[in-house]
Amino acid sequence: MKKVAVILAGCGVYDGSEIQEAVLTLLYLDRAEVEVSCFAPDIAQTHVINHKTGEIAETETRNVLVEAARIARGQVEDTAALNSEDFDALIIPGGFGAAKNLCNFAFEGANVSVHSEIEKALKSFHTQKKPIGIICIAPVMAAKVLGATVTIGNNSEVASAIKKIGGNHIEKPVSEIHIDESNNVITAPAYMYDARISEVAEGIKLLVCEVVSRA
Amino acid sequence: MKKVAVILAGCGVYDGSEIQEAVLTLLYLDRAEVEVSCFAPDIAQTHVINHKTGEIAETETRNVLVEAARIARGQVEDTAALNSEDFDALIIPGGFGAAKNLCNFAFEGANVSVHSEIEKALKSFHTQKKPIGIICIAPVMAAKVLGATVTIGNNSEVASAIKKIGGNHIEKPVSEIHIDESNNVITAPAYMYDARISEVAEGIKLLVCEVVSRA
Repeated sequence: MKKVAVILAGCGVYDGSEIQEAVLTLLYLDRAEVEVSCFAPDIAQTHVINHKTGEIAETETRNVLVEAARIARGQVEDTAALNSEDFDALIIPGGFGAAKNLCNFAFEGANVSVHSEIEKALKSFHTQKKPIGIICIAPVMAAKVLGATVTIGNNSEVASAIKKIGGNHIEKPVSEIHIDESNNVITAPAYMYDARISEVAEGIKLLVCEVVSRA
Repeated sequence: MKKVAVILAGCGVYDGSEIQEAVLTLLYLDRAEVEVSCFAPDIAQTHVINHKTGEIAETETRNVLVEAARIARGQVEDTAALNSEDFDALIIPGGFGAAKNLCNFAFEGANVSVHSEIEKALKSFHTQKKPIGIICIAPVMAAKVLGATVTIGNNSEVASAIKKIGGNHIEKPVSEIHIDESNNVITAPAYMYDARISEVAEGIKLLVCEVVSRA
């Protein structure tokens, strides 16, 4: 049975992992008869956003690993314990948490730096030539760490930053994926578009199937 | 276009809506070309559970409506504003939040009382003969308010409580549903079983298709 690691970034589109993208990733991995292990860094969220109003909840603090456990129904481990040798592939769903907690792209743009544990994971899966699937805004990390060619949909500002970082960008619609053959990196735009959940599901299904077939 | 109201109970299996059940409900409703509106009560959660450890976070408070917005990507309204005349059907996903925030079954068992706004919603959709889909543990509310015949899987303790409440219980496996024809109530066990997400998805897909076909 193939084993896939999934890195989460909290729980909620504005300050964590995009919940729908994460759940759809887990659904299609399970349908592919894959054994899934979820991970998240044991760090404070950059901030907590009230998802009803969109405002920062100034007085609140939440932990990325603890909140990620909501999506994973308790079954999530610290990324400090993630060893790529134990897995056949890596997938990272999107959401602002990917750009705020796993790296600082949301604040630094092209000057992004990636959390050391996430950088290590990307490099080690890449070195072992294992497929990496990255969704939504999270592909900026594959551009930064691996110089990969990715899609984040059609957002020209982010696409421009990806080129400055040292990656390359290919425009794709919500229900399609991009495959960087040389780096074995597969990307899907998902909620980088103002899309329907069924459209996002199509793209993530393609991504998961492609990653699993290469694992 | 048919319109379906979905009532959420927070965000997380142990203190809110079961995230995977809620997302799968939204996926299959969207696939059915239905217009979806999410609602949640504007009340404090009964408590906050650390989903990594399972322990109560004693010092934390969270609001059911605000947390539900994480699943719904911000698009959620107060159940106080839910008018059944605006919709063709109602669906309530499960999770402990359904048994802690929407009613108090988790604490009172057969002596359960249901939050007034949820009780009103169940009664008004029922009176208008509109289909009601209820998932996981949430069917205890249909037993209490409507005297419905429901399934919550094969948990004998909950099944016994449902009969004491005034409803009836039919055992069903995770990937099936029960249809109470006389009350137009459709139920699915989902994560009342220790199941795979793909199995839960099968049951919820059946439930959503049945509800939409009757809407």
